[in-house]
Amino acid sequence: MKCRVCEGPPVIEIRQHNAAFCQEHFLRFCRSQVEKTIHKFKMFGHDDRILVAVSGGKDSLALWDILLELGYRADGLVIGLGIGDYSDASTAKARAFATERDLVLHEYVLEDEHGFTVPSATKATGRVPCSACGLSKRHIFDAVAKREAYDVVVTGHNLDDEAAVLLGNVARWQTDYLARQSPVLPEGNGFPRKTKPLVRLSERDMAAYCVLRGIDYIVEECPMAIGNKHLEYKDVLNTMEVASPGAKHNFYFGFLDRAAVHFQGDDGGSDGELTRCTRCGSASSNDVCSFCRLVEHTVAVEISTAPAKIIE
Amino acid sequence: MKCRVCEGPPVIEIRQHNAAFCQEHFLRFCRSQVEKTIHKFKMFGHDDRILVAVSGGKDSLALWDILLELGYRADGLVIGLGIGDYSDASTAKARAFATERDLVLHEYVLEDEHGFTVPSATKATGRVPCSACGLSKRHIFDAVAKREAYDVVVTGHNLDDEAAVLLGNVARWQTDYLARQSPVLPEGNGFPRKTKPLVRLSERDMAAYCVLRGIDYIVEECPMAIGNKHLEYKDVLNTMEVASPGAKHNFYFGFLDRAAVHFQGDDGGSDGELTRCTRCGSASSNDVCSFCRLVEHTVAVEISTAPAKIIE
Repeated sequence: MKCRVCEGPPVIEIRQHNAAFCQEHFLRFCRSQVEKTIHKFKMFGHDDRILVAVSGGKDSLALWDILLELGYRADGLVIGLGIGDYSDASTAKARAFATERDLVLHEYVLEDEHGFTVPSATKATGRVPCSACGLSKRHIFDAVAKREAYDVVVTGHNLDDEAAVLLGNVARWQTDYLARQSPVLPEGNGFPRKTKPLVRLSERDMAAYCVLRGIDYIVEECPMAIGNKHLEYKDVLNTMEVASPGAKHNFYFGFLDRAAVHFQGDDGGSDGELTRCTRCGSASSNDVCSFCRLVEHTVAVEISTAPAKIIE
Repeated sequence: MKCRVCEGPPVIEIRQHNAAFCQEHFLRFCRSQVEKTIHKFKMFGHDDRILVAVSGGKDSLALWDILLELGYRADGLVIGLGIGDYSDASTAKARAFATERDLVLHEYVLEDEHGFTVPSATKATGRVPCSACGLSKRHIFDAVAKREAYDVVVTGHNLDDEAAVLLGNVARWQTDYLARQSPVLPEGNGFPRKTKPLVRLSERDMAAYCVLRGIDYIVEECPMAIGNKHLEYKDVLNTMEVASPGAKHNFYFGFLDRAAVHFQGDDGGSDGELTRCTRCGSASSNDVCSFCRLVEHTVAVEISTAPAKIIE
């Protein structure tokens, strides 16, 4: 197979498109897929100030790079989650990327700001780590975007991620989650617009993009995510993709094109009943929002289980 | 683990229910699951005359046996599909089951009645074998049920079958198929009611049921089905079931309980536009129904490709 565009020697083959690309045309292919997604879903324009949720992994760094190459105004935000060496290495990769390119990177350390880490919250709540982690990240992205007056938060969720989330929602027919599954969540109730411009690109595409662009990213998966359902659904989808190239794309975009509309009434319609969190002021369906409850619960557990101090 | 009911030594463990059963209570469990399904979906009553679509495999023979044990009035219909030794052996198993129990078994041979077999139709149409086979079986079940005045046709589709069909429909979001996916298709347009009483039981349950009841069934899968998508989706669902016992049940019944209603408007609404097939009189959306077109096309291809005869 030759490069689909210039017929030069290829560096990557994409079975789903029955195509191969040379380095230059693969990088252009990735950028054009992102541009297409931004336009199709009306994600943002060139005047918008964009905040990229950066983890130090391939997806978020590739996304930041692509947005800048496409001429968008994009700064980064990295959150120190306190997951030992993994978090330190993640933040270091994000910082190195920003420094080399002279970009604005906001840094936010969960423990410094709220007195807990993802491991300590996990221990306190007894729930899976991804639950406290996701809740914390969403809260902080929203808060920093608001404080710094960004127009939109973008995340590096790729096709593999979104198809796996969809399969999880479909496996249990969680129709309220299906109602909200979209690459664009509109601004509202004080929350910024949130978008996922990588949904047409796969994990493999993003790893190849980083290698070809010389982007140094953290390769390891989060050690606390091992064994979670999301990874199981990714395996299942990989099996389907091998048997039928394009299966993930058809599953995810078929949902958006033909099925999502059917679930729109199932999102609980909670928008009308939101109040303000008495602690942080975020829109919330309770007096205290989920994040502030997590903070209070985790700190309370930490105090009650701390070794007694000897009073001298 | 002991039998959930009598605490005797178990013959089978069912992970989805975290339960084990002795022989007697496993057989009762299967029958009660079928009875529950018949009642929940209002499939039929004890006065209805039931026609069981019999293949000679474990599901259809177990279903026939269970319906008789539950006191329903059920006769059988077996179709000779002309798939070489496989079809001969299938019919022989069905015939032996009926003869031993002195039951009514209608026999219908595709080649005798219509001059073609599933292999010759497959060759003529160039489509996958399961396409011509499914179309032929549906047509013949309907026609025989009508001719012999049965109230309902029942088929042996189990949970594994229905969950695999659902996964296939969801993989491509074929919303018209999702609209029609139900364990009961009502009577209408001259077509009999069709029901699937085994949807709460798995393939493994049905194999165990036959072994424990001494029912001799054809173990081999149809040789023409090898490599079809349906078997691929079954493998995927088995992977999910191993990781989360009950996954197939939750996927299928979650759809029926919470999602199916959302697709009801997507069935094409073709009921109002049906006419009568000019060949066989069945309700059809065209002048000639799909089955009669298959018959004509197959026979025409057979004539045109037959070796020339020497006229003496």
